Amino acid sequence: MNFANTMSRRQALKLAGGVAALTTISSVGMKAFAQEAAAGVKITHVRNATLLIDYAGTRFLFDPMLADQGTFPPFPGTPNPVDNPTVPLPLDIDTLTNVDAVIVTHMHEDHWDQVARDALSKSLPIFVQDEADAAMVRASGFEDVRVLTLDTQFNGITLARTGGLHGSQEVVQILGDDFGRVCGVAFKHADHKTVYVAGDTVWNDQVAEAIEVHAPDVIVLNSGQAYLFGVGSILMGAEDVLTVHQAAPNATIVGVHMEAVNHCVLTRAYLQAFADQNDFLPSLLVPADGETMTF
Amino acid sequence: MNFANTMSRRQALKLAGGVAALTTISSVGMKAFAQEAAAGVKITHVRNATLLIDYAGTRFLFDPMLADQGTFPPFPGTPNPVDNPTVPLPLDIDTLTNVDAVIVTHMHEDHWDQVARDALSKSLPIFVQDEADAAMVRASGFEDVRVLTLDTQFNGITLARTGGLHGSQEVVQILGDDFGRVCGVAFKHADHKTVYVAGDTVWNDQVAEAIEVHAPDVIVLNSGQAYLFGVGSILMGAEDVLTVHQAAPNATIVGVHMEAVNHCVLTRAYLQAFADQNDFLPSLLVPADGETMTF
Repeated sequence: MNFANTMSRRQALKLAGGVAALTTISSVGMKAFAQEAAAGVKITHVRNATLLIDYAGTRFLFDPMLADQGTFPPFPGTPNPVDNPTVPLPLDIDTLTNVDAVIVTHMHEDHWDQVARDALSKSLPIFVQDEADAAMVRASGFEDVRVLTLDTQFNGITLARTGGLHGSQEVVQILGDDFGRVCGVAFKHADHKTVYVAGDTVWNDQVAEAIEVHAPDVIVLNSGQAYLFGVGSILMGAEDVLTVHQAAPNATIVGVHMEAVNHCVLTRAYLQAFADQNDFLPSLLVPADGETMTF
Repeated sequence: MNFANTMSRRQALKLAGGVAALTTISSVGMKAFAQEAAAGVKITHVRNATLLIDYAGTRFLFDPMLADQGTFPPFPGTPNPVDNPTVPLPLDIDTLTNVDAVIVTHMHEDHWDQVARDALSKSLPIFVQDEADAAMVRASGFEDVRVLTLDTQFNGITLARTGGLHGSQEVVQILGDDFGRVCGVAFKHADHKTVYVAGDTVWNDQVAEAIEVHAPDVIVLNSGQAYLFGVGSILMGAEDVLTVHQAAPNATIVGVHMEAVNHCVLTRAYLQAFADQNDFLPSLLVPADGETMTF
């Protein structure tokens, strides 16, 4: 197959736009990375939904799944039955746990795992969605567990809890209300871009409301379309990402929670192809594991 | 995440149905496999579009790409820029080239590569779509090159050339007529199931016609949705597979040409999830590399 002459300069630029602002953290660059963290907004996509978010001088660890590759079994009743996580952790645990606070959107194992619970200092502030999750985190020995509100203040930053649902109404009716219970977070500061991390939700009124209320510049979407046979999708897929783009056409969308746990069927390549086909590739970043984006 | 109690017995059976009839060829089983080949219809999915087809006592090698993993560069202007093939060859080349005939649907490198051209005996019958391809194959030194017709006879088997197009009309307008030129083949014999291997085509009138004319029991679809940025899909995607199922609801569909070359964005897991969501998973087989299906 010879595609060599099929890509125009316009197409090449379009493609380049889709991967701009992505820089890989090498081990050599790690120190500089740490020193620069104080400045603005940097998001390092660690793996799956796990992020390091440097926001207005504070470093957050978001939804940590820190287990080694292949150390827990595939989720039952899902496609692609291989052990989880399906890929290695790209940064060392000491780097990942050297943070000012942790945010956990819900208690599922791919967002708050045993390795994270063991590795994190028990005195770190842990932000959670509600008292039910707070009780579970406290039961693991954490001493400073805080329930997110619509206007939580921390180090001069506003952390606003946003709503969500871990599947459509129909899916959550099958899986149960407790399964569906999730949150997202909007990071806000007068001097910095607003970052909305939507969490494990499909597109719905709560996501639309979060976009309307917070007018985010950056929207992180868990867009791996995790799937259960006989039930359906429990995460956003490509169509949902398009809908979010249409609701926030000027925002940069960051697609994550892909190619790291077995049941996420949407790949980076598919999402990028879909975004190209639907003319929003320039608004989309799809970071590799371990890559940092600056906003 | 706890999915343990979410899958009903019905769902589990449905899932099991989707993988029934798949058996992996171990090296131990290779001899028995060769001995049984004479009997009925066996299709071994080698990798990508490459198949070993045992049909009415004759063994065909179909669309051979036999290169080692990572030995040629990614197709330019496509997602997922990693070297091709992206996965290893699951069977040894001696086994793959010990056949009665070879069928090559078109001249693209992922269907007829240098390793295959070097490894195959120059006296083997090679079936191709037209005189243009025949000239190229003869130029590689092959002495018995035959152009498929609507009613080619070989060892008592009818090999019927079917039409196709390597992308939509719009896509082929961009890439050129020569790019779009492909065929498929229907294997027919009074005592055996009809097998239609559609080749590198999207869903179109030619595929519909092939289904109507040949009424296949088994349809092999290259459903990896290979994608070019700024151009579009050049293979079937999940929606096309559904359309084929609707056109041939009693046929077993075999989805291949996935997860082996860089630009195929549709994964096995996505296709299975989509088939489940659209209630045709029991009609779909998605073999692993090296797996054999018996019909």
